[in-house]
Amino acid sequence: MKRGKLICMVTVVLLGAVLILNTNVDFGSNTDTENFLVVGALPGAKAKYIFFFIGDGMGLAQRNAAEIYLASTKEGLAPESVKLTMNSFPAQGMSTTYAADRLITGSAAAATALATGHKTNIGVLSMDPTKTMNFKTMAEMAKEKGMKVGIISSVSIDHATPAGFYAHQPSRNNYYEIEIDLANSNFDYFGGGGFKKPNGPKGDQPSAFEIVRANGYTVVNSRAEFDRLSPGVGKVLAIDPFLDSSKALYYEIDRNDEMISLAEYTRKGIELLDNPNGFFMMVEGGKIDWACHANDATSAIIDTLAFDKAINEAVKFYREHPKETLIVVTGDHECGGMTIGFAGTHYESFFEKIQHQQMSYIEFNKILQEYKETHTPDNAKFEDLIPVIQDSFGLIVLSDKERTQLEAEKSESAKQKLSMVLADYEIQMIKDAFQMSMMEKEVRSKDEQTYLIYGGYEPITVALTHLLNQKAGIGWTSYSHTGVPVPVSAIGVGSSTFNGYYDNTDIAKKIMFIGGLS
Amino acid sequence: MKRGKLICMVTVVLLGAVLILNTNVDFGSNTDTENFLVVGALPGAKAKYIFFFIGDGMGLAQRNAAEIYLASTKEGLAPESVKLTMNSFPAQGMSTTYAADRLITGSAAAATALATGHKTNIGVLSMDPTKTMNFKTMAEMAKEKGMKVGIISSVSIDHATPAGFYAHQPSRNNYYEIEIDLANSNFDYFGGGGFKKPNGPKGDQPSAFEIVRANGYTVVNSRAEFDRLSPGVGKVLAIDPFLDSSKALYYEIDRNDEMISLAEYTRKGIELLDNPNGFFMMVEGGKIDWACHANDATSAIIDTLAFDKAINEAVKFYREHPKETLIVVTGDHECGGMTIGFAGTHYESFFEKIQHQQMSYIEFNKILQEYKETHTPDNAKFEDLIPVIQDSFGLIVLSDKERTQLEAEKSESAKQKLSMVLADYEIQMIKDAFQMSMMEKEVRSKDEQTYLIYGGYEPITVALTHLLNQKAGIGWTSYSHTGVPVPVSAIGVGSSTFNGYYDNTDIAKKIMFIGGLS
Repeated sequence: MKRGKLICMVTVVLLGAVLILNTNVDFGSNTDTENFLVVGALPGAKAKYIFFFIGDGMGLAQRNAAEIYLASTKEGLAPESVKLTMNSFPAQGMSTTYAADRLITGSAAAATALATGHKTNIGVLSMDPTKTMNFKTMAEMAKEKGMKVGIISSVSIDHATPAGFYAHQPSRNNYYEIEIDLANSNFDYFGGGGFKKPNGPKGDQPSAFEIVRANGYTVVNSRAEFDRLSPGVGKVLAIDPFLDSSKALYYEIDRNDEMISLAEYTRKGIELLDNPNGFFMMVEGGKIDWACHANDATSAIIDTLAFDKAINEAVKFYREHPKETLIVVTGDHECGGMTIGFAGTHYESFFEKIQHQQMSYIEFNKILQEYKETHTPDNAKFEDLIPVIQDSFGLIVLSDKERTQLEAEKSESAKQKLSMVLADYEIQMIKDAFQMSMMEKEVRSKDEQTYLIYGGYEPITVALTHLLNQKAGIGWTSYSHTGVPVPVSAIGVGSSTFNGYYDNTDIAKKIMFIGGLS
Repeated sequence: MKRGKLICMVTVVLLGAVLILNTNVDFGSNTDTENFLVVGALPGAKAKYIFFFIGDGMGLAQRNAAEIYLASTKEGLAPESVKLTMNSFPAQGMSTTYAADRLITGSAAAATALATGHKTNIGVLSMDPTKTMNFKTMAEMAKEKGMKVGIISSVSIDHATPAGFYAHQPSRNNYYEIEIDLANSNFDYFGGGGFKKPNGPKGDQPSAFEIVRANGYTVVNSRAEFDRLSPGVGKVLAIDPFLDSSKALYYEIDRNDEMISLAEYTRKGIELLDNPNGFFMMVEGGKIDWACHANDATSAIIDTLAFDKAINEAVKFYREHPKETLIVVTGDHECGGMTIGFAGTHYESFFEKIQHQQMSYIEFNKILQEYKETHTPDNAKFEDLIPVIQDSFGLIVLSDKERTQLEAEKSESAKQKLSMVLADYEIQMIKDAFQMSMMEKEVRSKDEQTYLIYGGYEPITVALTHLLNQKAGIGWTSYSHTGVPVPVSAIGVGSSTFNGYYDNTDIAKKIMFIGGLS
């Protein structure tokens, strides 16, 4: 390595270092280790192909829970022997996520930090905190440099995280304006969820889809069209044929084969974007966050595994281009205060129990909705729901007599079944929640204590996911994001710079540097 | 670097790699990045001076909470600009902590993994799971190699974490046998807490202290004697003159200047152990864990800061011997399921509120004990405790009229005071807890629901720390350890091998290799 290059690299690393006010001690760059790190970090090549995977709401516990879940599906497997693909990457770091104006960030401020390297205020998209100046994003830089650019999300493509890479808006809620920014981005491939307000907030604006088409995009929204997409098609907006009410993909736990997976969107993106000038691709696993807001561990874990499968698609490409590819994976923030421990299970964990869950909280809500439409609070009976609770979550309600009989059996299957039987106080919790769920939303208690128990969610559904999670030994502290740092993983060109403990804005700076974008 | 050495190092790294069953993809060692990492990791020198700092119960949230707390003490300080010394180290990694027989580990199994590189069962100290074979510890290896060895802990020196480095016992509860193992260790310096059972479990055994002395140790237990200790004194057991009922040091929040700090024990250790053959020193911050078991965030944070100060002592030494020193910091497991987010504070955090706390939960228990000794459940009045609750935790109980008056004031100080005023339902929570605290322990409810609220702790004290923590936006999920991975930090010779995501047994293997011990 030439001396000039080395000095340049040391300078960049020092540039990062001076941003940190170390309250205790300053290590400078005078250690052998550090110099070795710097030398090792930057093999002198620039990344031609950049993948940036963002798991929304994916912190340490979410990644770890997915590993423990995998281990629990195979009898006798030591949990430390199971690693997610992202957790197997050679470089692993930690990143603080704070927004400019709040310790606990939101997806817009976090997307701005990750896309541009600048902190901004909650709700602001790739603009400064005063909302007067645009910050250029790494995707825009890549496009200017002649690379192709792809943006993929499992939530609506105008949502905060993907929008942070192509839009500049004072509010993440300016969905229509964001869609117009997308239409004008000239980026090459958008894939995943749809538009939330394609005709504006009042429904009186020209269709954003038409503007996208007018700007030269092919818009597809069927699996057949998606499968037919091939290099040379030009700019593409590929929207999933099956979207939920938020214009997002379904949860992976609820996905059927007709629905396009995040891994398929990623694979298609590689196919369409691969070209001699290289590409930048951002892939968001957006519903890990939503499941964690609702404290539904199973849905969060299965979406994390789907996200990891999408990462595997990038790894396949990396293996073909190991000297030109960089893959970076992080979360924008943790969500829910998830952890692998609950007071009621003390030191024990029973992850095999969440395998009983057959659908996301949102699909269970639909079953409940049907029940509510055919019942009134007066004729609604908790007993009506017992079979569907058992089918959906594996939680069992037994009479005292039935329980005594089961206890007498002493077989292994009886023992397993007993571990899913609800205690009297747990049944009471579900009954209380059921009663509140049967009320009209307007008359439900709005006090703080009620919020602590159910958040803003369907009471009985939250009660059920909480109980199932707790039986597995999974705890939650919040229905919002939390402020704890999130893991960062990287493989490929320059990846070792992602070792260490740094700020989310540093992730953007590192990628820009390694990609030769800034 | 010579080719032979490089191959040897690659082999060691691969040795680590084959232990991992990657369920998704195998990266092997054929990537440029990885080779750069390996080359960068091992500068070819062996560490002559090794510091191993173990924060008991110190996970990601504990370290991060201490940083946010520091930031909250300085108006206008961006939280990402504050770093603990350990978090500023150039190498940062993550470690799984699982025990051989349980996902959530305990301090004995964790100490065994960290001291010997082998997994064992819960409660076992540096023996195999069948309790028939001893595992050699890195401290023993260092001693055999001619290095001096020091073991420091803020809890009793016969506790699981320190004992894992010098004792081999089928049970961590064999305190007397552990003390005898200490006496026979021939290690050079033990500092911190005392012996829990110096005359055996029944009090009928020869004094372990006498055996220690008979084996050539100087035993000191006053500050004057401690301060006088100087190189040449020979083998030392330095016990703090002020110990709590568990023979541990006081919490840092409760420490007065007569008490010896963890940093002082570390500084003295360096003074006594420094010699031409090098040394190995293990320093445990043991009461971070205890505070987290009790869900007392303030005490955990302040003990984490004290632990970081002890690390600073090692860093001073490292700066004088940068090419010969390795410092590694980790936790043995997380405790309490601590996180930076609570449902009731939604997206907000108010760390400045925990600055109101004046003492640990254990000192508050003492105040409560005095009250209990002079009152019966019949004449105990919650109102009696209102002043001491305000003095100790800053939590304010006001009548409706007083609250209305304060709200009318609209000044900044009134606003701040109002933020510490308890809501009616919170007062009811404390009253319920007070009532239970005033009962004899034997008649208190022992049901699962009661355990979820108070753990095994003094009910009113837990209610108060929970409420204060929640007001600050700090959540807990358990009174036990949790299974989430813990951060690892390193600086000095070979430190970059501590980047990445690996198992706790790998930490021991890395240290042994870099120290040339194994």
